[in-house]
Amino acid sequence: MSIPAEIDTPEIVIDRDILDRNIERMAAAVAGNGLLLRPHAKTHKIPEIAARQIAAGAVGLTVATIGEAEVFAAAGVGNLFIAYPLWLSPQKAERLQKLAQGARVSVGVDSADGATRLGTALGSAAGNVSVLVEIDSGHHRSGALPTAAAEVAQAASDAGLNVAGVFTFPGHSYAPGMPLAAAAQEQDALAAASAALAAAGFEATVRSGGSTPTALLTESSVATEVRPGVYVFGDAQQYELERCALADIALTVAATVVSHHTTAPDGSQRFIVDAGSKMLGSDKPAWATGFGRLMDHLDARVTALSEHHATIEWHGPGDMPAIGERLRVIPNHVCLAINLVDEVAVVSDGQLVDRWRVAARGLNK
Amino acid sequence: MSIPAEIDTPEIVIDRDILDRNIERMAAAVAGNGLLLRPHAKTHKIPEIAARQIAAGAVGLTVATIGEAEVFAAAGVGNLFIAYPLWLSPQKAERLQKLAQGARVSVGVDSADGATRLGTALGSAAGNVSVLVEIDSGHHRSGALPTAAAEVAQAASDAGLNVAGVFTFPGHSYAPGMPLAAAAQEQDALAAASAALAAAGFEATVRSGGSTPTALLTESSVATEVRPGVYVFGDAQQYELERCALADIALTVAATVVSHHTTAPDGSQRFIVDAGSKMLGSDKPAWATGFGRLMDHLDARVTALSEHHATIEWHGPGDMPAIGERLRVIPNHVCLAINLVDEVAVVSDGQLVDRWRVAARGLNK
Repeated sequence: MSIPAEIDTPEIVIDRDILDRNIERMAAAVAGNGLLLRPHAKTHKIPEIAARQIAAGAVGLTVATIGEAEVFAAAGVGNLFIAYPLWLSPQKAERLQKLAQGARVSVGVDSADGATRLGTALGSAAGNVSVLVEIDSGHHRSGALPTAAAEVAQAASDAGLNVAGVFTFPGHSYAPGMPLAAAAQEQDALAAASAALAAAGFEATVRSGGSTPTALLTESSVATEVRPGVYVFGDAQQYELERCALADIALTVAATVVSHHTTAPDGSQRFIVDAGSKMLGSDKPAWATGFGRLMDHLDARVTALSEHHATIEWHGPGDMPAIGERLRVIPNHVCLAINLVDEVAVVSDGQLVDRWRVAARGLNK
Repeated sequence: MSIPAEIDTPEIVIDRDILDRNIERMAAAVAGNGLLLRPHAKTHKIPEIAARQIAAGAVGLTVATIGEAEVFAAAGVGNLFIAYPLWLSPQKAERLQKLAQGARVSVGVDSADGATRLGTALGSAAGNVSVLVEIDSGHHRSGALPTAAAEVAQAASDAGLNVAGVFTFPGHSYAPGMPLAAAAQEQDALAAASAALAAAGFEATVRSGGSTPTALLTESSVATEVRPGVYVFGDAQQYELERCALADIALTVAATVVSHHTTAPDGSQRFIVDAGSKMLGSDKPAWATGFGRLMDHLDARVTALSEHHATIEWHGPGDMPAIGERLRVIPNHVCLAINLVDEVAVVSDGQLVDRWRVAARGLNK
C-alpha cells in the first residue's frame, strides 16, 4: 500500500478494513468460546473504535483510568470496568461519584486498605460502584494472592461496595513460549480466588481475564469474560510473538527517509526515518529484535531510537530506500504510540477516508 | 518537599525555583566560556520556559520540528534553528515558507539530496532560510562526514539557500565516561568541517555543538554556540551520569502508591505507583539502574514499567511507603515525559503557583 499524498510524515495511519476484520474476528471467536468480550480501550483511546467494538457485541469496555472512563461514558458506553487498583484522592472520588451516576462502573481493588479507602471516599455513592478483586496470576505486578482475595472482598463489602468478582492480568504472556502457560495460570488463579470468595460468602459472578496473547486460549470453564486490547491494531511485539500475522496489522506510522549513514565503523548500511521515540514509543522487551519493524522491508531492523530519529539497519535485498522515500513503520507497542498523537489518519482501500481524534490520549488520572 | 494537595496524581510538577537557577547558571557558564547559548526547546516545549531562557541571554532556540518552531515563533521567539535534516514534503514546504517570513530560521541538512530538495521546495523563499550542515562527530546517527560537508553546502547554495555553518549532536556523550571524549570529537569534527567548507569558499560563521553532558566542556576555540536542552530540568539519566546533582532536578512526577507486592518468588519487597510508561516514558539505556528514580528514596529502583504501573523494588531503610502515600518520581529521560502531558503544575517554595501548557507537545511534524 502506498501512503496517500494527503498524509504528511510522521503520522499514525489506521487501515479501517483491517481494523474492522480484527474486531469482528475477535468478537466471533470469544463468543464461540462462550465468553463475554470487554476490550481494553487504553490501546486505542478512540470513541469511533469503541463504537465498532460495542456494535460487534462487546459487553462494555475496560479502561485504565477514570479519565478514560469519562471519555467513553460521554461517548455513550454505559458499562465500564476500570481495571486498576485506584487509590481515591478527593479529586478522583468526586469524579468517580459523578461517573457512576451515568454509567455502570466497576473498579479493581487489590488490598484491604485500597478497598476501604475506595468505599469511604465514595461515601453514599459506594453502592453505585462494583469492585473486582485483582489477583496476581504470575505477572507479579499488582494483584493479591488468591488466598488474600477474601480479605480484600470483605474490606470492600464493609465499606459499602458491591463485590462482583475477580480479575487477573497475565502480563507475563507477552514473551515467547508463555501464552499457554500464562492462560493456564490465570484459570487456576481465577478458580482459586473464586473459591476463596465463595468460602467467605461472596459470589464471584464476574471472572475476568485475558490479554491479547491469551484471549483465545481462555476457557469458559472458569472465566466469564476476556479483556484483550492490542488485537484491534496488532503491533511488532504481537507479530514477533506470532500472536498476529503481518496482514492483521492495522496501524502503522508513515515515515520519511531523511538520512543515509553508510560510514559507520562497523560497515553497516543504515538509514534514518523521521519517526522516533516521540512517535513510536520506546518499549523494547529483551526478546524483541528491535524498536519496531518496517511493513515492506521485513529484513530491516530498527536498531536505535532517538526522539525524532529511528536508525534502521539494512541488510538488503537491494539498495536502501532513497532519501525522501516514505515507509510504514510498525511500532513495537501500539498502546504507547497512539498515546503520543492527538489524531490519526484513517484509510480504506488505500484512500484517506477520515481522521479520528484520540479523545482519551494522555488521560493518566 | 511535600506535594501540594491541589495536585492529583500522576502529574508532572516543575519546581520553578530550581528551574530558574538552572537557566541562570547555564547562561552564565556558557557566556563565561565565550559561547552563545541556543537551548534545545524540545526538552520543555513550554513558551513560559523559553521566555525565561531568552531573558537570561539565549541567542535563540533550537527545535526539532517545524511544528515546534511554529509554536515558539508565535510566542515571540524570533531566531529559531531546526536541528534536523528535514525532507520537505509539499505540506512542510508551505509551512516553512510562512515560518521564515516572521522569524529568522535556519535548518539542518546532511545530504546533497536533502539540501537540493529543501531549496527547490522553498522556491523563491529559499533565500529566507539558512542551513547548517550536520556533521557526524561519532554518534553515527544523522550527519555527514566532515569530508562530505562541502558537497552538501554546495548543493544547498546551488538551490538558493544561505550556508551559515555546521553543527553536530554528540549523542554518544550520554554514557558513563564519554562526555570529555565526545566533546573533543565534536570540536575536531566542527574544525574539520569548517576547514572543508572554507576550502570550497563557504564561511562557517556558525559552529554549533553541545548536548547537556558536553555543554560546559565545549570550548570557543572552535565552537561558537552550544545547544543543551535537558539542563533546565535534569533527569535520572543526567543524575546517574553525574551531570547534575539531585538538588538540580526541577521536574518530578507526583505519584501515589497503589499496591504492595511482598509475595514475589524471589522474596523482593516491591510496591507499585500510578505513574507508568505513559507518564515517565520508557527509555532505559543499558547503563541506567532502572526506569527512573525516587527523589526521597535513593536506594529504591524502578525495575519495571507498564503503561500505568511502575514497579519499585525496595531495599529499605525502613518499611515500604504505605499504600496511598504520595512520592516524587524522577523520569529517566525528561524530554519524553513532558511530551506525554498537556499541562504541568508549577510550584515555588512548596506551593502550587501556576500551571503551564505544554504548547508544543506532540508536534512531530
